[in-house]
Amino acid sequence: MRCVLVSKRLDLRRYYGAELARTAPHLEVVDHAAGAPANDVRVALAWHPPDDAFERYPNLQAVCSIAAGVDNIIACPSLKPGIDVVRVVDPGQAQLMFGFVAWHVIGHQRGFAGFRAQQRDRVWQRRDQRRAQEVPVGVLGSGAIGQRVAQDLAFLGFPVMSWSRSAKPVPSGVRGFDGPAGLSAMLDETEVLVNLLPLTSETRGLLNGTLFGKMRRGGYLIQVGRGEHLVEPDLLAALDSGKLSGAALDVFATEPLPHSHPFWDHPKIAITPHDASDVSISAVVTTLAATADAICAGRRPPHAIDRARGY
Amino acid sequence: MRCVLVSKRLDLRRYYGAELARTAPHLEVVDHAAGAPANDVRVALAWHPPDDAFERYPNLQAVCSIAAGVDNIIACPSLKPGIDVVRVVDPGQAQLMFGFVAWHVIGHQRGFAGFRAQQRDRVWQRRDQRRAQEVPVGVLGSGAIGQRVAQDLAFLGFPVMSWSRSAKPVPSGVRGFDGPAGLSAMLDETEVLVNLLPLTSETRGLLNGTLFGKMRRGGYLIQVGRGEHLVEPDLLAALDSGKLSGAALDVFATEPLPHSHPFWDHPKIAITPHDASDVSISAVVTTLAATADAICAGRRPPHAIDRARGY
Repeated sequence: MRCVLVSKRLDLRRYYGAELARTAPHLEVVDHAAGAPANDVRVALAWHPPDDAFERYPNLQAVCSIAAGVDNIIACPSLKPGIDVVRVVDPGQAQLMFGFVAWHVIGHQRGFAGFRAQQRDRVWQRRDQRRAQEVPVGVLGSGAIGQRVAQDLAFLGFPVMSWSRSAKPVPSGVRGFDGPAGLSAMLDETEVLVNLLPLTSETRGLLNGTLFGKMRRGGYLIQVGRGEHLVEPDLLAALDSGKLSGAALDVFATEPLPHSHPFWDHPKIAITPHDASDVSISAVVTTLAATADAICAGRRPPHAIDRARGY
Repeated sequence: MRCVLVSKRLDLRRYYGAELARTAPHLEVVDHAAGAPANDVRVALAWHPPDDAFERYPNLQAVCSIAAGVDNIIACPSLKPGIDVVRVVDPGQAQLMFGFVAWHVIGHQRGFAGFRAQQRDRVWQRRDQRRAQEVPVGVLGSGAIGQRVAQDLAFLGFPVMSWSRSAKPVPSGVRGFDGPAGLSAMLDETEVLVNLLPLTSETRGLLNGTLFGKMRRGGYLIQVGRGEHLVEPDLLAALDSGKLSGAALDVFATEPLPHSHPFWDHPKIAITPHDASDVSISAVVTTLAATADAICAGRRPPHAIDRARGY
């Protein structure tokens, strides 16, 4: 089967070419940028495709993302309605994400930034040792990663709540919330908020002043969803007013974060360069191969998302 | 029963007085520093007692520590051989210690110090995402806290090894080592070393250049045992040579750490002021009350340690 690589941001062959050749040699892999032959392409691996990319492939049946997020593919104007969009599900990614989130949650719980400041000033001063049980965490998003993060934070002793648009089963030890009223109820008890939502028309701009206003005073934001979830001036206002005590930001509306952006030297913001958790190369290639196999067999690919819903 | 509070470092009544009055009103609590009546004192709560303190209590039967460590009590010259020494076992403390250790292990795994430096310089640069499975952790000490830390690190996906002087059962998912040969074998595979040993004549100075030399190059030390475990110049040499990439130090031979000490502004050292994990006030008082009850009943107190062994 012929598979095309499509991205205006990344050289996908550089990342995935060797693994594709090694473990999926039955795929004939061609490059969109090279003007690949088009009629017999039935599957694509894509990341931020050019707007007109998919016009060239009349027999395309499915597009795989290289990540858990698919928003940049769904948004492509040339992607026809009937085509399946597939996300990568990688337990290793969920574990990396959990470690990233846990590090920031514990750092907030124990005040490690304060210890760093004390060390710089050679100050020996013990701090209030808050127990995990005293720091309620709200997780936005109950997908595979959100569920794993919620479950493992509960294992660490934190009271964990989980929210999704529609009611979903939640891991044991986690309290589930859904819908707009459920969101308000959860925020009311939330000190640390972890954003793991997909980006859809309903979640764009969800992290705004109104939402921060519902959280506990001195709360903390861990933003690992998409940059477009956050209304940036509202975060700065919440930090400056003391409503929030800090924020860990891994994703941004514009990436790389522009050099002059006020986030860079804000004392209450910790920045990482969209590096919280990658899916592994092998998980991407495995997903792509499984998608091609399903097409051959006339089945719907595993992990194809609901395009109307957007995730 | 009469109980004496003995410390040259802390005002124990200030910390524990209210909880003692509330939950152990049957104990008549007196203060060593006030020249308390002596003949009928049968139990003591102590922390760094003065050298001659216990000469005054001929009918003393047990001394409770306020922590998991008892070295400062055993070392008191006036403590007669037959007297039981009791440590506090507090699951809440083990959880706090785990959180502290996990924060430093994940910080090393993911290079969070490097992200901080990048943010300061406004550099957007992704880093190698090492999986937990790639970072073997060795835990020195298989007491209640060491076992909990080892087990929970294994849950996070780290390959975990655990060492104690003599063979002990280890949690599932953890590889156990013991004795001098076992220590060398464990260090050979260790990237992150967590010290949770008791301080004894055998463990004093154990964290030295020879030990660091056996670890993986670029290793990391998390020192949460006792300051006297560490040979300080050897740590500085191991950091300067690159044998170790960093160290988190919570305990020191001299506390508070002297203002002029070279650890304070070492770029590879993270300092906390002996604040990794406290036992709760209620756990201390519960242990003291259980010790008094056991004395009344003619039983040995629970959690009395082996004085010959030192823990």
